[in-house]
Amino acid sequence: MQGNIKGNQDEPGMIRNIYYDSDAGGVVILNQNLLPGQMEYEKMYNHQDLALAIKQLKIRGAPLIGVAAAFALALAVINYKGPRDQLENYYHEAERLLASSRPTAVNLCWAINKMRVVFEGKKHLNLNDLAEEMLSAAKNMFDEDVTINITIGELGQVLLPPDTQVLTICNAGSLATCGYGTALGVIRSAHKAGKIRQVWACETRPVLQGARLTVWELMQDKIPVTLITDSMAAHLMRLGRIGAVVVGADRIAANGDTANKIGTYSLAVLANYHGLPFYVAAPWSTIDMSIHTGLDIPIEERDAEEVRRLGGKYITVPEVKVFNPAFDVTPAALISGIITEKGIIYPPVEQGLQRQRSAAD
Amino acid sequence: MQGNIKGNQDEPGMIRNIYYDSDAGGVVILNQNLLPGQMEYEKMYNHQDLALAIKQLKIRGAPLIGVAAAFALALAVINYKGPRDQLENYYHEAERLLASSRPTAVNLCWAINKMRVVFEGKKHLNLNDLAEEMLSAAKNMFDEDVTINITIGELGQVLLPPDTQVLTICNAGSLATCGYGTALGVIRSAHKAGKIRQVWACETRPVLQGARLTVWELMQDKIPVTLITDSMAAHLMRLGRIGAVVVGADRIAANGDTANKIGTYSLAVLANYHGLPFYVAAPWSTIDMSIHTGLDIPIEERDAEEVRRLGGKYITVPEVKVFNPAFDVTPAALISGIITEKGIIYPPVEQGLQRQRSAAD
Repeated sequence: MQGNIKGNQDEPGMIRNIYYDSDAGGVVILNQNLLPGQMEYEKMYNHQDLALAIKQLKIRGAPLIGVAAAFALALAVINYKGPRDQLENYYHEAERLLASSRPTAVNLCWAINKMRVVFEGKKHLNLNDLAEEMLSAAKNMFDEDVTINITIGELGQVLLPPDTQVLTICNAGSLATCGYGTALGVIRSAHKAGKIRQVWACETRPVLQGARLTVWELMQDKIPVTLITDSMAAHLMRLGRIGAVVVGADRIAANGDTANKIGTYSLAVLANYHGLPFYVAAPWSTIDMSIHTGLDIPIEERDAEEVRRLGGKYITVPEVKVFNPAFDVTPAALISGIITEKGIIYPPVEQGLQRQRSAAD
Repeated sequence: MQGNIKGNQDEPGMIRNIYYDSDAGGVVILNQNLLPGQMEYEKMYNHQDLALAIKQLKIRGAPLIGVAAAFALALAVINYKGPRDQLENYYHEAERLLASSRPTAVNLCWAINKMRVVFEGKKHLNLNDLAEEMLSAAKNMFDEDVTINITIGELGQVLLPPDTQVLTICNAGSLATCGYGTALGVIRSAHKAGKIRQVWACETRPVLQGARLTVWELMQDKIPVTLITDSMAAHLMRLGRIGAVVVGADRIAANGDTANKIGTYSLAVLANYHGLPFYVAAPWSTIDMSIHTGLDIPIEERDAEEVRRLGGKYITVPEVKVFNPAFDVTPAALISGIITEKGIIYPPVEQGLQRQRSAAD
């Protein structure tokens, strides 16, 4: 429906989410809150705009908000007009603002750390050149993310047998990344390999990323998709209509416990009960080796109005008390494999992650 | 908020759902589709109106649609103006229409069968007297349902320990019955006994009976309730914030397999995984001894638009394929107890149901 404004690469799963517009001197983002009804790009004039857009979910998905933070930090330097000796304070202030925009996804911190290395290494340059280096680093991060996702897709699709029906939740697709997607990357590669009979997309209350984004993405790529409410997954499993569950991740602890969109843990328990494989697809940057178990992952609680209202209208008694955690944690024991660009980590996941990390060192 | 138009009994959980208005010669129902925003009563002029209202969910809940069918059959006789020798054909036609309005809840058939006994026994009377008998039978069924629910509540509350946090789905409350409720009847009685710390209400997509009806009912009675999306139940269980799950039922097979609102089976698997008791509260009329297992219970599939739209607005790509089963089946093995007015049936449920049935014979 919006084929003319698709990404710079004319390939499935390459939707242009975020880019720097040099003429206008700002970062342009696709406002995902308006999808699938409207495809509207918004210009972000400064890093504060981007921090707010991340908070408001205009731009979301763990890998994408990492890259968005990188662009925001580049923009911070581009915009800086103050005295040179105040630059570092200003930069660290910008880092803090971005890091606090959403607490659960670790990719945000990972990107901020990566950008800090560039900043520290190049801060002796004149401001223009420093800005150029920062922007170039953000763009590289964008390109790298696409490559990583394609690798995740190719590695992960091997796990799916022919004629598979895959269940997914939320949107771990091109809209959650810089292109191709993590969980949807695996599904895209499996689809190319002719293995996908059907994708079941959980609508993903309260923000409906499944109904709004995953359905839209998969329909654009002509991958067969059927929408269900989150409550229907167990029934489908019992009917034998699901072959595997594939989801993304916002943060993976050192022991493999995985934080992802609320409802993911429920699917993991259900998959376990029905003897179905449950896979997590995520870039290595999602793994937080500094956190031992999922208990230590901070879980964002969002505004009650996200649950109480839909499309601006109340769907319940406006005064009702609400609990609205945006994520849950799936214990490693329920995960059949973590698909990263460095390889697939099989159970016992904790040992696998350690091995992979040592190999990389 | 609408205290002035509450039921004829001035007690908690006594909302006037359905009644015969003799002045107007019709049955009046509360249109539950407009709750909690509007409390609007609608007059049903004939049994066809009532069949349509049942199909459209204006009036819903297994016990209540049974009684609604009884009122509809009384209304059919009241309205009959044709030749006397055509009455039986006409009556059977009305029965068929009502029986086909919703396929899963067995209470509809149960009520139709009960009314047929009255019809057969009294059809020798003149039309006015026959109509009077039918109406009186429907009213008795209404009153009996209230008594049954209070009994279910009193028996069931014993199962809950002090300071319990109970999870429920859909609305098995006064709005689903003629008053007091089944699952919410247990919760009401436990609340009276001072045992309820908190009720967690699953919003119950797609039709949101939890968010719209259960929340509203419990808030009216000042029973502490917190709303969650269906996808959050597992996370709450993991946090240790649920002590028991109590749900209603639309049909229970002879072996104890239980059809209830979509999402119930999911909660049963999750409760099992977390070692939590999972109770079903339902009148004996919900038990269908003619059906051996849950595999034989017909599962209603409803219009895809119920999932695609909310409040008239599309929340997804309008053309997306949707699967929309209104119910699922929870196997008896996952049920800790079935609370009926005849007593609590403990596992093994199949044997318990048979024993209880023999005792009643």
